[in-house]
Amino acid sequence: MIICGILGAKGYTGCELIRWLLKHPEVTIAFLGTRSEETIPVSTLLPSIASPENLCVETIDTKKVIETCDVIFLALPHTKSMTFVQEFIDKGKIIIDLSADFRFQNIAMYEKWYKVSHVAPQLCENAVYGLPELNSAKIRNADLIANPGCYPTAVLLGLIPLLEKKLIHRHSIIIDAKSGLSGAGKKCSSVTHFCEVAENFQSYKVNQHQHMPEMEEKLGAHAGQSVKIMFVPHLLPLIRGIHATMYVSKNEGVTFDAIYNELASAYEGQPFVRVLPEGKLPQLKNVANTNFCDIQCIDAGDQVIILSAIDNLVKGASGQAIQNMNVRLGFDQSLGLL
Amino acid sequence: MIICGILGAKGYTGCELIRWLLKHPEVTIAFLGTRSEETIPVSTLLPSIASPENLCVETIDTKKVIETCDVIFLALPHTKSMTFVQEFIDKGKIIIDLSADFRFQNIAMYEKWYKVSHVAPQLCENAVYGLPELNSAKIRNADLIANPGCYPTAVLLGLIPLLEKKLIHRHSIIIDAKSGLSGAGKKCSSVTHFCEVAENFQSYKVNQHQHMPEMEEKLGAHAGQSVKIMFVPHLLPLIRGIHATMYVSKNEGVTFDAIYNELASAYEGQPFVRVLPEGKLPQLKNVANTNFCDIQCIDAGDQVIILSAIDNLVKGASGQAIQNMNVRLGFDQSLGLL
Amino acid sequence: MIICGILGAKGYTGCELIRWLLKHPEVTIAFLGTRSEETIPVSTLLPSIASPENLCVETIDTKKVIETCDVIFLALPHTKSMTFVQEFIDKGKIIIDLSADFRFQNIAMYEKWYKVSHVAPQLCENAVYGLPELNSAKIRNADLIANPGCYPTAVLLGLIPLLEKKLIHRHSIIIDAKSGLSGAGKKCSSVTHFCEVAENFQSYKVNQHQHMPEMEEKLGAHAGQSVKIMFVPHLLPLIRGIHATMYVSKNEGVTFDAIYNELASAYEGQPFVRVLPEGKLPQLKNVANTNFCDIQCIDAGDQVIILSAIDNLVKGASGQAIQNMNVRLGFDQSLGLL
Amino acid sequence: MIICGILGAKGYTGCELIRWLLKHPEVTIAFLGTRSEETIPVSTLLPSIASPENLCVETIDTKKVIETCDVIFLALPHTKSMTFVQEFIDKGKIIIDLSADFRFQNIAMYEKWYKVSHVAPQLCENAVYGLPELNSAKIRNADLIANPGCYPTAVLLGLIPLLEKKLIHRHSIIIDAKSGLSGAGKKCSSVTHFCEVAENFQSYKVNQHQHMPEMEEKLGAHAGQSVKIMFVPHLLPLIRGIHATMYVSKNEGVTFDAIYNELASAYEGQPFVRVLPEGKLPQLKNVANTNFCDIQCIDAGDQVIILSAIDNLVKGASGQAIQNMNVRLGFDQSLGLL
Repeated sequence: MIICGILGAKGYTGCELIRWLLKHPEVTIAFLGTRSEETIPVSTLLPSIASPENLCVETIDTKKVIETCDVIFLALPHTKSMTFVQEFIDKGKIIIDLSADFRFQNIAMYEKWYKVSHVAPQLCENAVYGLPELNSAKIRNADLIANPGCYPTAVLLGLIPLLEKKLIHRHSIIIDAKSGLSGAGKKCSSVTHFCEVAENFQSYKVNQHQHMPEMEEKLGAHAGQSVKIMFVPHLLPLIRGIHATMYVSKNEGVTFDAIYNELASAYEGQPFVRVLPEGKLPQLKNVANTNFCDIQCIDAGDQVIILSAIDNLVKGASGQAIQNMNVRLGFDQSLGLL
Repeated sequence: MIICGILGAKGYTGCELIRWLLKHPEVTIAFLGTRSEETIPVSTLLPSIASPENLCVETIDTKKVIETCDVIFLALPHTKSMTFVQEFIDKGKIIIDLSADFRFQNIAMYEKWYKVSHVAPQLCENAVYGLPELNSAKIRNADLIANPGCYPTAVLLGLIPLLEKKLIHRHSIIIDAKSGLSGAGKKCSSVTHFCEVAENFQSYKVNQHQHMPEMEEKLGAHAGQSVKIMFVPHLLPLIRGIHATMYVSKNEGVTFDAIYNELASAYEGQPFVRVLPEGKLPQLKNVANTNFCDIQCIDAGDQVIILSAIDNLVKGASGQAIQNMNVRLGFDQSLGLL
Repeated sequence: MIICGILGAKGYTGCELIRWLLKHPEVTIAFLGTRSEETIPVSTLLPSIASPENLCVETIDTKKVIETCDVIFLALPHTKSMTFVQEFIDKGKIIIDLSADFRFQNIAMYEKWYKVSHVAPQLCENAVYGLPELNSAKIRNADLIANPGCYPTAVLLGLIPLLEKKLIHRHSIIIDAKSGLSGAGKKCSSVTHFCEVAENFQSYKVNQHQHMPEMEEKLGAHAGQSVKIMFVPHLLPLIRGIHATMYVSKNEGVTFDAIYNELASAYEGQPFVRVLPEGKLPQLKNVANTNFCDIQCIDAGDQVIILSAIDNLVKGASGQAIQNMNVRLGFDQSLGLL
Repeated sequence: MIICGILGAKGYTGCELIRWLLKHPEVTIAFLGTRSEETIPVSTLLPSIASPENLCVETIDTKKVIETCDVIFLALPHTKSMTFVQEFIDKGKIIIDLSADFRFQNIAMYEKWYKVSHVAPQLCENAVYGLPELNSAKIRNADLIANPGCYPTAVLLGLIPLLEKKLIHRHSIIIDAKSGLSGAGKKCSSVTHFCEVAENFQSYKVNQHQHMPEMEEKLGAHAGQSVKIMFVPHLLPLIRGIHATMYVSKNEGVTFDAIYNELASAYEGQPFVRVLPEGKLPQLKNVANTNFCDIQCIDAGDQVIILSAIDNLVKGASGQAIQNMNVRLGFDQSLGLL
């Protein structure tokens, strides 16, 4: 059995990790930590699951974490995760960080968008971006896995195979994305008040969301040259899910079939990415509470419309984190996730 | 033209007052006040209505209120309203208070349930409970009108005529009520977070909600003897509306028809209380954004089931406040409300 | 491995059976049937789960069902199930019927409320009502298990222990129940249209719902004498869940603690019925997508308020059906359900 | 007083017409027609409004319509409206048609997309497209006004001023649009079932929606040359509203400020189109139940993102129809609509 710990266990992604890890056949949870001074039984935090009677979230105690855990999930807010990692790495732990802190190779870009100085820049170079369908070789050997953002997961899975094969323009990419409210986190504000969300819909951070540089860096790395996107996120009146509608231009001579086939073959045999048959479109209810990413592409003459859908808390966060753990530890990547 | 002011204009009931008063043919708004230090254009606060360009909510200035307003609506939190009233009364203003501060004749009961000492007990005796369908004679002469609570409005309209005529037991009344989220106010908390409300339903303050003593006092006053109720409120995943399902026992010898007919005749000619024809049931979408209260009763042998539905922000608060103003000023009670 | 079949696999309860049975460690699905002339892959019907590639719902073929299945779940509409059962019983199959057809010992009552003549009255006497927490001894030996209705499940679990021990009046029971939309089934009508449901709430079939006689028969059987209830169901703007608020009168000399303790001890050791600790109230999000029934009771002087919450499609239908199968086959009752 | 009739009064747009016309100070409703054989009181159809006691929807009787009405609103399904118009025109009536039947100058295009032969092609040439902010001169003299589609209204208001002034490319227009469920009409189907819509989001008719050719024809007419768009509509889990996010490329030498200023000046003095100040974004709750169209544009380097929001039943249908009537009859265009 693998012994796991979670820091930041009280938030939405922390709770989602608990939910899935408790069902994982090869995992035991040894430590659940929060930055606040309190002890909360998991049965109180997550009444909808049957949990071991004495399992509690308690104040973070790094010594205890180090003594008990092999794998540590960091579900802390951005800029908080990076303060914990060096100590854990020094003790030989495997770290899966759900924050943005180690997603960037370009540290200056991280510091600009997250408005903070990186306190562990020495770790960034060896951090591996945890998109298992496209990066499993590196994940298998990583000690620090940076779990992708929710929007980047939905977007990168739809675009990377096409940019790698140079089937689409790298400067004509428009991404219109829509997210459910759980993406805004558990914090209460007028943005998350039921009366502001129900029967409403709006865009936010138009073309200036912090996930843009993350997507551009990863798309660029796979394309072998810089990539430029437009990105408009919107808020959906529902709890779970991200839907991305992506408008791209085909490179000269490329057929629509070449695009569809490239996506289909890129994910052949992958249990979680489902390139849909013609006539089916991704919809959130088909991926909610699952680790699936559904993808479709539609012929639009010189352009192609690529649609993708995930659950932001599962494939866009905690499910993918466990998938990364599975890959890192040599388990079947879908273990505990189907 | 009547010149009005609103203190507490930023909350849900304050905004609802602005919305309706701007359409009222006999009213001009002269002052919109908030307890915080800020100035907010109404066009920012209420983008869904066309409002006069320079109309703003500003920090409360009682001198200015007194100089400019004939009628003052208090849409302040409970325990805050009572600090303002004496000064306005002394200057001959008409006050319509949407808080609970002057709803009680039994001041001790108010102090017990709202956990505060009343700072203006001298005003309570002459305060008039503003349920216009049942109390218009007094409202016509009142300087201080205490606007009923949202739950009490839905409940009292269904029960008072029956208790007045002694058609039902006064000790067997069970009220199962359900409210939309706007009843919880604009304040952000885990209770109002979209992800806690959507796809959820629960009871709260079971048989200990602060509207219970208000209902018992008013039911008792109309019955001529003490009345005891059970009251269980629940939270609905929607924005506007209260639905009450009330279970009462008929007095000996009383027929179901007598009950139905009493309700029908009690509200004959009333524009806002609609006793539905047989076969129709109250539903929230028929009263949302209106000042209607829909009522039905159903034969259940020795018992009768009485159903009522209102919009908590309109008939349960701001619409009824304007109806009270209309009655007090001698206008048609529905002026500006249909 | 146990070989199962489902007739009526396309509806909400049929799909929910498929979802849970595919995860059950001791079950194989051999036949999925529909009354219509068509073949539908499970991957089309239930895109949110990973299903075996060739598993399809096909037109019902009773010969094939008999040849391949040990246990047959009937998820057919009321009045359709009863036409299939005798043939399966004759062949020694175990039948778990999710319709109302075999829930009644009083066949006349069934015929009156479902407006149909019973075509297999000879089977009713030996049919066992499948409420495993309260009836497991009989379920263990039953060939025909009548799975309870969704409202009855939520109600009976809260009331039966109290009536059995004569702690509450048998003629003062008021049940105010609220159900999510999936309870209305997959059939499209103005009742299920999104624009009629969202932002709406209403009662329906007030004190005349077909689940009333089912509840009265079962409550009476456990009380040892006739029981009379009032029952008002309401429609919630959400997908899954039933919440019941029940108002009962204590018998003379009975304390509130005796009531709470009776419920607590009745379900001690039961994995799915959770009598909540003081201060917690049932809420739908804690039971949605689970087989749990959460129960609380609240002191109200001479009366007690009992609250319960279930997922109508799981504990109120398909989850309980599988729990019944587990009990019948000698498995742990929670196998595949946690 | 103007005497109006509505054919197709039972659908969502018909009911919305009734709601607004009953409040219009210069209108009397003389006839409400449906194609089915029945008579329905408006008080039954629209319980949320106070309506004249004897006002009913009845079976369409064109003779009666002609005898009583000056202005006739056709809220019939596409392909049904065109059968009624010639007769009304011959009698000198003013027709405002909410269907697509007279929106196209290119009849072949209409016939291709709506899969029907036009039965009144002789009327198309003189039919005027009813977008009052951009076409009021013609509307003032029209006898047959073709009310725009809901998506086209949101889109055209955002793009036409820019194409007219040649500020943006006419071949790089991408429109990502999202609509609430009332856009799907009152007909019941699996698409409108609450359980399929709540907590779900999906695209549909990707780049092949019947509103595309309507938009291209009107954009082209204003641009003075052909215009090509990509258009992806999506379904939102809410009742009312359309939000369009439009991605366009600036023409060479054009600044972002020129774009913003052109939109601002195009709608200066217009009561219903609000070009928002910098920092504000359109959101559906600000336009729901209003005739407003909120527009914003965002600088994105060589490109501009234009956002617009309307209520699909008001500015996208019935409100705009009444606005067209106001313009045609010489009333203030906002009469009865604020």
